[in-house]
Amino acid sequence: MSTSNTVRNDGWFKLPNSRELVRNAIQIKSELLRNALAETVGTFILLFIGTSIIAQLHLPNGAINTWVQINVGWGFAITISVTSVSHISGGHLNPAISVLFFTMGELDVVSLLVYIASQHVGAFLGAAATYVIYRDAINDYDGGFRAVTGSNGTAGIFATYPQPFVSPLSAYLDQIAGTGLLAFCVLVIIDQRNKIPSVAHPLLFGISLLVIGCGFGLNCGYPLNPARDLAPRIFSYFIYGKEVFTHPWTCWFLVPIIGPTIGALIGGWFYIVLVGSHIPDEEKAKEEVRGKQ
Amino acid sequence: MSTSNTVRNDGWFKLPNSRELVRNAIQIKSELLRNALAETVGTFILLFIGTSIIAQLHLPNGAINTWVQINVGWGFAITISVTSVSHISGGHLNPAISVLFFTMGELDVVSLLVYIASQHVGAFLGAAATYVIYRDAINDYDGGFRAVTGSNGTAGIFATYPQPFVSPLSAYLDQIAGTGLLAFCVLVIIDQRNKIPSVAHPLLFGISLLVIGCGFGLNCGYPLNPARDLAPRIFSYFIYGKEVFTHPWTCWFLVPIIGPTIGALIGGWFYIVLVGSHIPDEEKAKEEVRGKQ
Amino acid sequence: MSTSNTVRNDGWFKLPNSRELVRNAIQIKSELLRNALAETVGTFILLFIGTSIIAQLHLPNGAINTWVQINVGWGFAITISVTSVSHISGGHLNPAISVLFFTMGELDVVSLLVYIASQHVGAFLGAAATYVIYRDAINDYDGGFRAVTGSNGTAGIFATYPQPFVSPLSAYLDQIAGTGLLAFCVLVIIDQRNKIPSVAHPLLFGISLLVIGCGFGLNCGYPLNPARDLAPRIFSYFIYGKEVFTHPWTCWFLVPIIGPTIGALIGGWFYIVLVGSHIPDEEKAKEEVRGKQ
Amino acid sequence: MSTSNTVRNDGWFKLPNSRELVRNAIQIKSELLRNALAETVGTFILLFIGTSIIAQLHLPNGAINTWVQINVGWGFAITISVTSVSHISGGHLNPAISVLFFTMGELDVVSLLVYIASQHVGAFLGAAATYVIYRDAINDYDGGFRAVTGSNGTAGIFATYPQPFVSPLSAYLDQIAGTGLLAFCVLVIIDQRNKIPSVAHPLLFGISLLVIGCGFGLNCGYPLNPARDLAPRIFSYFIYGKEVFTHPWTCWFLVPIIGPTIGALIGGWFYIVLVGSHIPDEEKAKEEVRGKQ
Repeated sequence: MSTSNTVRNDGWFKLPNSRELVRNAIQIKSELLRNALAETVGTFILLFIGTSIIAQLHLPNGAINTWVQINVGWGFAITISVTSVSHISGGHLNPAISVLFFTMGELDVVSLLVYIASQHVGAFLGAAATYVIYRDAINDYDGGFRAVTGSNGTAGIFATYPQPFVSPLSAYLDQIAGTGLLAFCVLVIIDQRNKIPSVAHPLLFGISLLVIGCGFGLNCGYPLNPARDLAPRIFSYFIYGKEVFTHPWTCWFLVPIIGPTIGALIGGWFYIVLVGSHIPDEEKAKEEVRGKQ
Repeated sequence: MSTSNTVRNDGWFKLPNSRELVRNAIQIKSELLRNALAETVGTFILLFIGTSIIAQLHLPNGAINTWVQINVGWGFAITISVTSVSHISGGHLNPAISVLFFTMGELDVVSLLVYIASQHVGAFLGAAATYVIYRDAINDYDGGFRAVTGSNGTAGIFATYPQPFVSPLSAYLDQIAGTGLLAFCVLVIIDQRNKIPSVAHPLLFGISLLVIGCGFGLNCGYPLNPARDLAPRIFSYFIYGKEVFTHPWTCWFLVPIIGPTIGALIGGWFYIVLVGSHIPDEEKAKEEVRGKQ
Repeated sequence: MSTSNTVRNDGWFKLPNSRELVRNAIQIKSELLRNALAETVGTFILLFIGTSIIAQLHLPNGAINTWVQINVGWGFAITISVTSVSHISGGHLNPAISVLFFTMGELDVVSLLVYIASQHVGAFLGAAATYVIYRDAINDYDGGFRAVTGSNGTAGIFATYPQPFVSPLSAYLDQIAGTGLLAFCVLVIIDQRNKIPSVAHPLLFGISLLVIGCGFGLNCGYPLNPARDLAPRIFSYFIYGKEVFTHPWTCWFLVPIIGPTIGALIGGWFYIVLVGSHIPDEEKAKEEVRGKQ
Repeated sequence: MSTSNTVRNDGWFKLPNSRELVRNAIQIKSELLRNALAETVGTFILLFIGTSIIAQLHLPNGAINTWVQINVGWGFAITISVTSVSHISGGHLNPAISVLFFTMGELDVVSLLVYIASQHVGAFLGAAATYVIYRDAINDYDGGFRAVTGSNGTAGIFATYPQPFVSPLSAYLDQIAGTGLLAFCVLVIIDQRNKIPSVAHPLLFGISLLVIGCGFGLNCGYPLNPARDLAPRIFSYFIYGKEVFTHPWTCWFLVPIIGPTIGALIGGWFYIVLVGSHIPDEEKAKEEVRGKQ
């Protein structure tokens, strides 16, 4: 590990600064393509780490990880993955957030569709990479007989499944609430009137997800992100068969798609209407103070 | 998630910057009303997340959350909720803190009353929202027969109840100590002579509550906030009946109201008298240094 | 909670800015007295929180806290308590660290003795405060029959005791190593050549103690601080009798006094001799770069 | 603990500022030697803390530490150890990272070899120091009969061993993935186009390792660093005999050497090719904005 610029050797044999050479040779000129690549890579990193965290909890039956590692791990995985691409695409990594930004006039329709597609591609690849790393461990766990649920079930590593007691209505409300709080936090953090330096944004996104996971993981496992759930579910279809789309109810898989999208819109606009619109402007505030003195 | 201003698309179809349009249309001019709304929303967010965290610990009997998630979750829930409204109302979210600020000359009487009322409204709504999200899980836990305590008891999700061994005197001392330490920390953090940048305040408030929860949660569950306890208790009255006000003793419910208020005054003025008043002034310090050289 | 300066009410009835009035009336002029008070208050806060954290782990037999809360709680308790008084006395809160600073020429002999005495007074009062808060819980645990060790033993809440397998030599080495690493970290953090802004110092002190507690708590419970151990032990003498000084060996209680003092000197000077002395000066580095271009 | 520069005593008896005197007397002029010492000390600190953390988990059979302390402890041990020497050698502390920097033209061949040798020396000494501190506890655990594995096995405190179900292919993929993600994060953090202030780098390195440990510790215990694994293994050879090199397969010990080196190259160049090369330049971005307006 290194801050690197403190190393000032000019020694015996040293390679050229290949980083800048490569950059000049391959830099993508199209902003849309650049953003597509960034959203793909960012969501890949998020899901590769994220589904591996669940594997590490599930496969040794909690002997290594505990649930707190789910919260801390996913929270700071957001910090890392958003940081990695935020200076290119903004680091949405979540179709529900991209839809919210579209409604706020920050994203055009073509970009919205490209972002969503890229997020799904990245999430699919991330889940696949986790499967490659943990195939031996899954085989050890289930004896090679893949099962969605039950004592040998491992499909929950990739996509989320609700607790048996959760009704469809509760499941939708749960996803709306969790993603609504996430979108609320995102807009709090990026609102320039709240004066949070942009370097701190990914850390606060991570802390927000950590906190939400401490309170909204019981019912459905807090997917809160259509791409995070659907793309790994499609991947898991190739391993576990079509039951991944029908367990425990026929249309469960739609909940982590529709719920988060509605939730992000409600939570985001809840912030804009009830909080963000009422933060006093700096200049006005200063004038008031001046007027008083 | 996004830092958003890095996205510079001017693509095919893009909505207008609706955030600013909405702001111009609906911004509240009255400072008092604005602050009332902010304290309501902030306390709503805090309690919605906070009581959900307790539900996630209690309902699966600790199989998901452990007590560390209570500490970390509530700590950073303070960070998030205070951050969200600090540029409007200051983000008190706690009547005991508002009373302390009143005694310090930072809040007039009308504002104090409005803050306290708003905090209770927000806390009531937050607890109600948790009930909506976790009604299925509570039904699964108690078979639909709501009980305050016992093996089916779930009222502790909403309001706090002391351990059986805690005497009234110990309960009061516990709430005075916990809230006193919280108020001490708040004044440390906001004292401009301690030169902590305001963007870091909510993070340090959260860390303070996290630490206090590690040490002062055993006796009474660290409510430390009259609105956080009373308003959800009133909500839970509609679910569990009047036992929520009489368990385990007739006037237990007064402890998390009176104790924190006394505690915040003691802790806050303890800081002012024993620490804050004695921080050397910057200018003086510089002069001394100059004098010496 | 509040950043406070955003509240600009000038309402109906408002108290005067009593904070500054009090300050002007009572500010202590003597630097030595000021520092004595600051070290007393800071160490009081540290020990009140710290011994309460251990009580919350021990009394419910780990049903609430787990060991991770010891690490996180003590770590960030350092952050809070050092922050609270660092602009007055520097926030040593540990005689071993004060002795190290004396050897570095940062503290005169009189100040050193005053710091050490103040730290002990604060630690004694902090332990006593924990006893007041947790007396009911201790009575519930031991039926009112105080015991140092055994199934009813609770003296470990206040002072540390080594594991049965630890020999005196290992105990000394353990305390030297743990406090040595702590002193090493303290000098890393405050070395101006490492360019860490002073507002981040208490956070990094806390993270350092957190990490050290993850690795050096098994043998002796990481006291790492003579005042943190001796003063609460003296307090516990009044509750548990003289066995607190003789269990498990006659002179165990000297280990957390002598070990940390030796350790801080070794760890601090290890940093100065092997690391701090070799950080290139900024100006030199710039000249070198200039020379090359 | 202290920010120290707030202490302005000029009291009765005060030692000279010995820190600067020592510095002037012993400062090493040779950059290569300075860097060698820094990498040795930094890796010593990392391994002394790190292997002690594993000892504290393993020896009381998880009664004190849990796996979350492994993640948090190792993560922030990176923060501390990198911070301590980053202004001298850059704080690589990992041969795989040094090799990556060599391929990026940031390190010459001689420096690369010196860095790698120094990292191994430091790691060896760190493991030896842990053995000194925990010898009594290991004796208590195994009755003095050292065993690599089995119910008395303790060699896992020093070097890593894979789970029985892990095939050589999976082990290599696991180490490539984990170290690849680590190298990816390192380049994200230090890329100046991502504008992360250098004081935050060690904290983010630590958070990265924390997250990776939450997801990639199950198969092989995430060594991710050739020096962290080989040098303590060589030390443990003197305690446990040659089985440390042959358990559970003849060439297992090569996996945490070869895997991380390949992984760092893949992960680092994955970042450069797919992310870093496409971050828009500040000036260009500004011109575009100007052009549009």
